[in-house]
Amino acid sequence: MTITGKNLIAGEWSGESENGFSAIDAKTNEVLKETFADATTEEIERAVVRANQAFISYSQLSAIKRATFLRTIGEQIIALGDDLVTMACAETGLPEMRIQGERGRTVGQLGLFANLLENGEYQGVFDQADENRQPLPKPDTRLGYLPLGVVGVFAASNFPLAFSTAGGDTASALAAGCPVVMKAHAAHPGTAELVAQAISKAIELCDIDAGVFSLIQGKNYAISSQIVTHPLVKAVGFTGSERVGMILQKQINERAEPIPFYGELGSVNPQFIMAGKLTEDASGIAQNLVASLMMGQGQFCTSPGVWAYVEDENTAEFESSATEAISQTQAGVMLTPAIAATYTSAVEHWQTLSGVELLAQGQSGVEHFGRAALFATDLSTFKTTPALHEEVFGSCALIVRLKNLAEMCEFISLLKGNLTASIHATDSDLDNSRSIATLIAHKVGRLIYNQMPTGVEVCASMNHGGPFPASTDLRTTSVGSEAIKRFQRPICYQNMPNELLPKLLCS
Amino acid sequence: MTITGKNLIAGEWSGESENGFSAIDAKTNEVLKETFADATTEEIERAVVRANQAFISYSQLSAIKRATFLRTIGEQIIALGDDLVTMACAETGLPEMRIQGERGRTVGQLGLFANLLENGEYQGVFDQADENRQPLPKPDTRLGYLPLGVVGVFAASNFPLAFSTAGGDTASALAAGCPVVMKAHAAHPGTAELVAQAISKAIELCDIDAGVFSLIQGKNYAISSQIVTHPLVKAVGFTGSERVGMILQKQINERAEPIPFYGELGSVNPQFIMAGKLTEDASGIAQNLVASLMMGQGQFCTSPGVWAYVEDENTAEFESSATEAISQTQAGVMLTPAIAATYTSAVEHWQTLSGVELLAQGQSGVEHFGRAALFATDLSTFKTTPALHEEVFGSCALIVRLKNLAEMCEFISLLKGNLTASIHATDSDLDNSRSIATLIAHKVGRLIYNQMPTGVEVCASMNHGGPFPASTDLRTTSVGSEAIKRFQRPICYQNMPNELLPKLLCS
Repeated sequence: MTITGKNLIAGEWSGESENGFSAIDAKTNEVLKETFADATTEEIERAVVRANQAFISYSQLSAIKRATFLRTIGEQIIALGDDLVTMACAETGLPEMRIQGERGRTVGQLGLFANLLENGEYQGVFDQADENRQPLPKPDTRLGYLPLGVVGVFAASNFPLAFSTAGGDTASALAAGCPVVMKAHAAHPGTAELVAQAISKAIELCDIDAGVFSLIQGKNYAISSQIVTHPLVKAVGFTGSERVGMILQKQINERAEPIPFYGELGSVNPQFIMAGKLTEDASGIAQNLVASLMMGQGQFCTSPGVWAYVEDENTAEFESSATEAISQTQAGVMLTPAIAATYTSAVEHWQTLSGVELLAQGQSGVEHFGRAALFATDLSTFKTTPALHEEVFGSCALIVRLKNLAEMCEFISLLKGNLTASIHATDSDLDNSRSIATLIAHKVGRLIYNQMPTGVEVCASMNHGGPFPASTDLRTTSVGSEAIKRFQRPICYQNMPNELLPKLLCS
Repeated sequence: MTITGKNLIAGEWSGESENGFSAIDAKTNEVLKETFADATTEEIERAVVRANQAFISYSQLSAIKRATFLRTIGEQIIALGDDLVTMACAETGLPEMRIQGERGRTVGQLGLFANLLENGEYQGVFDQADENRQPLPKPDTRLGYLPLGVVGVFAASNFPLAFSTAGGDTASALAAGCPVVMKAHAAHPGTAELVAQAISKAIELCDIDAGVFSLIQGKNYAISSQIVTHPLVKAVGFTGSERVGMILQKQINERAEPIPFYGELGSVNPQFIMAGKLTEDASGIAQNLVASLMMGQGQFCTSPGVWAYVEDENTAEFESSATEAISQTQAGVMLTPAIAATYTSAVEHWQTLSGVELLAQGQSGVEHFGRAALFATDLSTFKTTPALHEEVFGSCALIVRLKNLAEMCEFISLLKGNLTASIHATDSDLDNSRSIATLIAHKVGRLIYNQMPTGVEVCASMNHGGPFPASTDLRTTSVGSEAIKRFQRPICYQNMPNELLPKLLCS
């Protein structure tokens, strides 16, 4: 495949990439050969205006045709073959098997929404007319859903396929009937272009208005601002850091018209290890937590960053097992040199904190690799040390040693919102687990029992979101069938004849 | 009933009303005898903290017990008897029959949510475990819902019962499992206190933590700010003007943690009268529109404020009928002298606008009464005159005379968001109605065919919301069963034993 280095604006490749930016080979830290054009103000304006022009016709497309379009995108992604895998591996440093798996998930997500559309999309709610009702007749009312309009999507660094160009946000927005203006992540612009080529081919094959998808490349912050503040943009999806997410939120807040902002920003995913579990297998649970932490070099949004338990006769064994497991881990390539530097400096900062003990570090590697770290602290230090409440993006975990269940409850009250939490327990812990579950449920989007938080099922009952900062909108999920609802809104049709009703609402 | 003039803070009547504010008799413009205490900073803090303390226990209450609580509130409101009607009529100027009807609707709304809870509240979505799935086993996942936490509710001036103290926002928040801190409207504090007394009795009778409901009185703007920016407040409901709503939205935007803001702010509810309808009965449709406009002296949020048609041989008859009907209307008492003054000055301002013709005014009355007004303009004036795009709260309507269907489509593109629109048409208009319906659907929360917009059914398929400024969150409705979803959010339970699952999700 040829990489043009250009922006895809409503079907046309646009821009001059000669003096543009390049991605970096995550493994070697060398600049990759392809250059990419920062999108111009005019190109972004054109992308949004063309998306809006395509909106009405695309929103009127039958569910079956939208489903075919989604499946065709998936087929065209597969047709990119090994070139896509090679490019994504180079730009992100993620291993080949992981990228292949993520490609499967990405195509699977497109298929999930295609199924949803083919199976009827949503159930209309009908309330029949009643001419004889007193004191006034009851009109016929039917509840349906409309797409919101043009959606701005921002790609994530840590999932170059499943949360990027044709990832969950794009798939659910297109499924809902919304055109997408996609801002590629500057760390993997080549991967983004390849996937955009696949989408572009699918648009041609399905004879859809090319305005329905544009790809915006760039390292320039003004690009993001132009997208999220554009009056024709009606919703924004974002997965990334709390810092960048809150910059976007602030810009969105300044709009004349409020719009939904779906930002997935950060999560420490607390793990509660109960007394019975420690008695049963302190060493096994410690090793499993380390294995979960090391997945993707700790760069999963559901990585278990904080482990809490009440100290007892088994916690020494837990800590020594965890220490040993961490010590044996190899340093690993991180997504970008910048992410590696931020990670290393956060770990160094934690080492300076009073009341925080460094229990173990993984083996060291080259400078731009990440090295695992395990810390421990107590409740009073956790309470008074704001740095410990922030996500450290990478393979760093913090043990919080608690004196009793009351301290565990207080610890929960101090936590910010999270995507997930796990309770690791046995039947003997049931009463305590219930107390903890009741409290921690209000701090998470997904509550897990005796399983690790890493790995997110793409299915109807999934919720990938949660109280802030896990999500800027805790009423929504970015993974699973319910994600489509982020880009739809209700409309009531009153006394409408079948000729004017959407097909799903006809009697 | 005795009016204390105090704030109800978690079951205790608090504050000194001696130097407080009073409401005004809307009809006579005289100050009513009761005085009310502006809530203090400390009282508001106590209300929110106590609400939050009550949250976990209240959210754990069974659906059946919450349903009983809602029904008991309804019974206690009825038990207030004529005192409530007398007080509400004096404070709002609304006629007795209207207040009796609104009381019925308020009790009905509480019953609707009680039914919803008794019938199972929501359907959990289950995805079964599959141990044998490759490459990884599928965990058991179940999607449920949790209440958000403490909800701040602001009462509306125009519905002293149905959108106020125990109105739709309060009923749906309490149904969802959220404690409510209610800010009474300063125009009807006595009505608010009586309803708060009813809620307080219901809390006692049902043995519920008194923190679950507080009533905050006050005319001081700092009160609203303190409620919406409080870190323990997790959602806000508001019905009122765009001006005040956007002040609240701005304060909410400055919070560290974003929260949902459900503001219903304004709507002109455009009416499209198609050629066939004008041929069939130009005079009848004109008279029906005037009747709809005059309901509640034009102070319904769904009042038909803009009427659009393509000029033809029948529009003269329409305009002369409408002119005659408006001219015969009596001046009427408005909700408050301030609302009447704002209305009168808006009508006076429209009279100064170039390209805007005053077709008719209703008969004049005393100074603080509202007098109906009917204006007409063309597309180019509408396009260039921002004042015509704003809601005039009261019995004022604007005819937009269009040259052809293309102009009607352009007119739609200029409209802001609305709660409703109606298409008045016959079978002969079907093709044109379809074009208009497709476009106007994206500007409204409810699309009506051959019925007037005033009157909102309280049922499962209702949507009372819409694109901004109709609502600050177009994904939600403030009327009907779906309103409960504003105060809930999804949570996925993964691999949880029945002992730790909410009852609705157990297998």
